[in-house]
Amino acid sequence: MKTLKKTVYEIIEEAAPGNRPSEIFDVFLITLIALNVVALIVGTVEEIHRISPGAFYLFEVVSVGIFTVEFLLRVWTCTENPSYAHPVKGRLKYLVSPLALIDLLAVLPVYLVFFVNLHGLDLRFLRVMRLLARIVRLGRYFSSLRTLGKIVHTRRGELAAVVSVLFLLLVMTSSLMFFAEHQAQPEEFASIPRAMWWSIITLTTVGYGDVFPVTAAGRLLAGVIAIVGIGLFALPAGILGSGFMEELEREARAPVRCPHCGELIEKA
Amino acid sequence: MKTLKKTVYEIIEEAAPGNRPSEIFDVFLITLIALNVVALIVGTVEEIHRISPGAFYLFEVVSVGIFTVEFLLRVWTCTENPSYAHPVKGRLKYLVSPLALIDLLAVLPVYLVFFVNLHGLDLRFLRVMRLLARIVRLGRYFSSLRTLGKIVHTRRGELAAVVSVLFLLLVMTSSLMFFAEHQAQPEEFASIPRAMWWSIITLTTVGYGDVFPVTAAGRLLAGVIAIVGIGLFALPAGILGSGFMEELEREARAPVRCPHCGELIEKA
Amino acid sequence: MKTLKKTVYEIIEEAAPGNRPSEIFDVFLITLIALNVVALIVGTVEEIHRISPGAFYLFEVVSVGIFTVEFLLRVWTCTENPSYAHPVKGRLKYLVSPLALIDLLAVLPVYLVFFVNLHGLDLRFLRVMRLLARIVRLGRYFSSLRTLGKIVHTRRGELAAVVSVLFLLLVMTSSLMFFAEHQAQPEEFASIPRAMWWSIITLTTVGYGDVFPVTAAGRLLAGVIAIVGIGLFALPAGILGSGFMEELEREARAPVRCPHCGELIEKA
Amino acid sequence: MKTLKKTVYEIIEEAAPGNRPSEIFDVFLITLIALNVVALIVGTVEEIHRISPGAFYLFEVVSVGIFTVEFLLRVWTCTENPSYAHPVKGRLKYLVSPLALIDLLAVLPVYLVFFVNLHGLDLRFLRVMRLLARIVRLGRYFSSLRTLGKIVHTRRGELAAVVSVLFLLLVMTSSLMFFAEHQAQPEEFASIPRAMWWSIITLTTVGYGDVFPVTAAGRLLAGVIAIVGIGLFALPAGILGSGFMEELEREARAPVRCPHCGELIEKA
Repeated sequence: MKTLKKTVYEIIEEAAPGNRPSEIFDVFLITLIALNVVALIVGTVEEIHRISPGAFYLFEVVSVGIFTVEFLLRVWTCTENPSYAHPVKGRLKYLVSPLALIDLLAVLPVYLVFFVNLHGLDLRFLRVMRLLARIVRLGRYFSSLRTLGKIVHTRRGELAAVVSVLFLLLVMTSSLMFFAEHQAQPEEFASIPRAMWWSIITLTTVGYGDVFPVTAAGRLLAGVIAIVGIGLFALPAGILGSGFMEELEREARAPVRCPHCGELIEKA
Repeated sequence: MKTLKKTVYEIIEEAAPGNRPSEIFDVFLITLIALNVVALIVGTVEEIHRISPGAFYLFEVVSVGIFTVEFLLRVWTCTENPSYAHPVKGRLKYLVSPLALIDLLAVLPVYLVFFVNLHGLDLRFLRVMRLLARIVRLGRYFSSLRTLGKIVHTRRGELAAVVSVLFLLLVMTSSLMFFAEHQAQPEEFASIPRAMWWSIITLTTVGYGDVFPVTAAGRLLAGVIAIVGIGLFALPAGILGSGFMEELEREARAPVRCPHCGELIEKA
Repeated sequence: MKTLKKTVYEIIEEAAPGNRPSEIFDVFLITLIALNVVALIVGTVEEIHRISPGAFYLFEVVSVGIFTVEFLLRVWTCTENPSYAHPVKGRLKYLVSPLALIDLLAVLPVYLVFFVNLHGLDLRFLRVMRLLARIVRLGRYFSSLRTLGKIVHTRRGELAAVVSVLFLLLVMTSSLMFFAEHQAQPEEFASIPRAMWWSIITLTTVGYGDVFPVTAAGRLLAGVIAIVGIGLFALPAGILGSGFMEELEREARAPVRCPHCGELIEKA
Repeated sequence: MKTLKKTVYEIIEEAAPGNRPSEIFDVFLITLIALNVVALIVGTVEEIHRISPGAFYLFEVVSVGIFTVEFLLRVWTCTENPSYAHPVKGRLKYLVSPLALIDLLAVLPVYLVFFVNLHGLDLRFLRVMRLLARIVRLGRYFSSLRTLGKIVHTRRGELAAVVSVLFLLLVMTSSLMFFAEHQAQPEEFASIPRAMWWSIITLTTVGYGDVFPVTAAGRLLAGVIAIVGIGLFALPAGILGSGFMEELEREARAPVRCPHCGELIEKA
């Protein structure tokens, strides 16, 4: 006989194959979070928000209510997980786990605004925190995002090596361009950190055109920097990209678990 | 003895090797569609259209006449194809096939303008529909376009995984930049959907320069987003590109059918 | 005993290993052409040309003199080459070969300006023709340029397939953007050919910012086009790039001819 | 018994495994140089420098003092290195080695400003020299930068071949665009060297938008140049990138020396 706590735990945890109530709960929660993200995004468009501010407000209140109940259920049932088995210490340990903190961040800002006198705090900051927390919550259900996280971890050595080279390149090119253009454009190349903005936007080939060299020396320097540096700035992109492709191929070859009997199925 | 219907069917279908009349018909039709596309494109240039609006009109009328006859012949003869064998049901089934719909879209707009009172409908919309339908018709004869379609189908899993990551990245970077720049540029970063325009144009490295961060925080954020995100936005490109290269190599190695005897020829 | 014609032929042809006079002639000619190209480029800078127009003029006259003598010697001695052996027909055949035509284009414009009454012809056009012809002459001595030509030839099938896809993509995206933006920007999106300028500059990710969508529909469309299309527009670059790398690797492994004894040397 | 000179030499040289004082010295020096670079960069921001010019000055004086002592110690102890064993000739040889010159450049500008009457010399130039020298000193401790240097050396043949192609392409496209746009934009396309700025910014896909073609001919030309040329300009980037990835993989497989016992450890 399962206890009520164990039943609830199994429903709100990620669905095991064949557990219908848990699958339905997952779909419901993903849909709710996705609609929430959409509402928070669309709600920043003045013209749309004006149509019915009440509807946005109501949806927000209902969502936060559901997220709060869900959060409390997770705290109540987390002791079913062997990692958080102790009734008090386990629950405290769970509360400071990244997953629980994200869940908290997704609801707390709303309560802060309601119950606490927050004259000092920026409301827009809380709104963005809430939105980001919910995007991260949504991302938790995207297997491709987990793949990406895995790749960053596997390739952290290469990425660190490349980022250190980029950093030195950035400092060097910014110093040179500051020297070449400061006199001609004292505003755009006011300091080396300001010149770094030019360096990043040029070396990533974005090239907004808000700042560019105007002297002959600056252009010569910029031309050489562009030809040489662009390859180096494309490296982190290349590392992530090739890692992603490899991982997707590996996953395509990996055996999958049958959703009906739970057995591993080898692929051709 | 072939019936007339079968003879016509074989001519207007894609040419079997050695069928001269069908080959000539194909070349004629491709040329006509290509000229049509060129005329529709060039006809949008006021200076050229003004020279002789009558010539453009006449060419259009003649083309639509030929396309109409071709379409009716296809509907008449489609019963030769085992998939559409039934005189009534087969023809109806053919009429709703993508190929027939495209053919219909390539001529219907013209008849709508002629015979129906279309005060509500935008004439420019019908023109573009017509043009797109003819480009698609033209594309049907490009084997490389079929290759591309095949690749999108084969790699749909990878593409979906990548696109979902891009979508989350887009939502997250847009939210952050909206938060960082909204106060300084209430017009350009008016809402998160508006900030998404910045995100797409920056992460694809297009960088028009119509919208870019101006605050120090926004620039710092944009710099990090650019370095990290560009690699991820280059992924769908990389997947399509590597798929295309692989497919072209496979095709180069695949045996071809001799245009004279119809036998397969193995390549070295 | 070598005839004078054969000796001259061997000197002005590309140097065989160990033929010192021919090597010296090659170095002299490459230097002269390179200086010529530099002079023609630098001569377009008003401030530099003004310093001493006479020096530029003198250098040009002397160079053209030397190139003329060289050209006449080539025509005289070309009969030593078995392909152009016949005294009259061989020389005529040589005169219409690409190499001879380039040599002629490098000197003829100067004579046209001197001796013929050329009121109708644009002097700047002749100058650019002369410059381009000399750059091509210079390029003849760059083995990496010949490598590139070889790659374009080997991969012509792939390049043609890709270019045809790009062309259809260009026509389609331009038609769609013309439809979406024509009303809002009747100047920048005046016609489909004008919209093609937007398409090319966006799909190559150059993004000057002289023309970009301003309507919501146009931006949505442009965002999708950018994410999907950039990968396809990067394909010719990728084909040329990977071909170049393969070829350079092949050449690095290929045996070389010893410059002293003329024997082939195998590499590890 | 080690002499004092040998002890000092071992401390200031890169740390051997297990030599604690040398390791501490390395960490101290890297931190000092890094802080120095940060101070020189941040010091160019007027608002920050104004807060406490004295602190920046003091930190600079103390740093230069330490660097001077370090430099003198290096000159004194360099005779421990077999390459510079001779007390006089060895020290002179060391003084003109790249490492010593960089060290000298990192301190000399300060003394030049203090002790010599430098009315003619630009102070900003000395500051940038000092900064660059210290960045290079910092870079000496980045193994990834040494990796990069190694790659440039290994691939110098390929890089030279590619750069020569790029140079010819640059000259040719600039000449063509100068011809096409000079009349319409006499300022932006004033000369071929000016047109080269357009070529570089377009072919690297940076596309600032400060200069772009406006005539139909110029746009047609620019479109073709963009599609063809971008692939070639991406080649040096690709060569450096693939070299970097290969080298990082090789290093990941290479045996490492245990920091405790100094023995080589094979990796799986």
